[in-house]
Amino acid sequence: MDKVNDLSESVIFSKGEKITNAYFMGETWLKMLVSNDTIFNCPIGNVTFEPGARNNWHKHPGGQILLVTGGIGYYQEEGKPVQVITEGDVVKIYPDVKHWHGATPDNWLAHIAISTNAQRGDAEWLEPVTDEDYRQLGTLRRTGK
Amino acid sequence: MDKVNDLSESVIFSKGEKITNAYFMGETWLKMLVSNDTIFNCPIGNVTFEPGARNNWHKHPGGQILLVTGGIGYYQEEGKPVQVITEGDVVKIYPDVKHWHGATPDNWLAHIAISTNAQRGDAEWLEPVTDEDYRQLGTLRRTGK
Repeated sequence: MDKVNDLSESVIFSKGEKITNAYFMGETWLKMLVSNDTIFNCPIGNVTFEPGARNNWHKHPGGQILLVTGGIGYYQEEGKPVQVITEGDVVKIYPDVKHWHGATPDNWLAHIAISTNAQRGDAEWLEPVTDEDYRQLGTLRRTGK
Repeated sequence: MDKVNDLSESVIFSKGEKITNAYFMGETWLKMLVSNDTIFNCPIGNVTFEPGARNNWHKHPGGQILLVTGGIGYYQEEGKPVQVITEGDVVKIYPDVKHWHGATPDNWLAHIAISTNAQRGDAEWLEPVTDEDYRQLGTLRRTGK
């Protein structure tokens, strides 16, 4: 199937290294732009998901902001319908809201992830989004965007 | 003179409205992506400077991060040489460090500005970068980047 775009080199910021922890499914890359410290309390990462890649359900005690720089992806909060996110979208994830994000099955996704109030602690990682649940979100068709 | 690039429509995020306060010289546009609040404590703006535009010297009590999304600009801290900043650069501005930023004379600049620890208060605005001081930084030539 055609891809809407190829973000295998990410967008604007470096792609960084492959994420190897157990909280991501599919290939995802992370470049930390600002590390976690007690001066800014605001770690910032550039995250690039290949088609089909996504993270587990999780929560941030201090919240997180996503700035979508390219591609087409999904963002979902527990108990709510999935949202399709694309270039230029801004996602505000309130503290302790259970959610996940990632690419659609047929598109790359690149976003900047800004962890706010980081002094409140690290993300709490939960269960994966199963293949069954993910597939039920449907295959997004080319939008030409 | 040729422009390296035309960012009159900004980069990825909306250009927003013209900044009309007295702390900017030349035309600059701001689109707030995340407003200031007590939940995230992290207002985020997309800022687009036309060639020659820059802000006054200022300080942030909680610090600020700049993510450069396009163009070529200047960043300078008091008592230090100017730095040329371009697409993909990340600038960490420590709390209470006096500094300014803006476009070069011949290039647009677009950056995302992330105000960290915003609960510590608003920016303190100081004197302008005079035309004389700004011109002495020299005219940057096309880099082809």
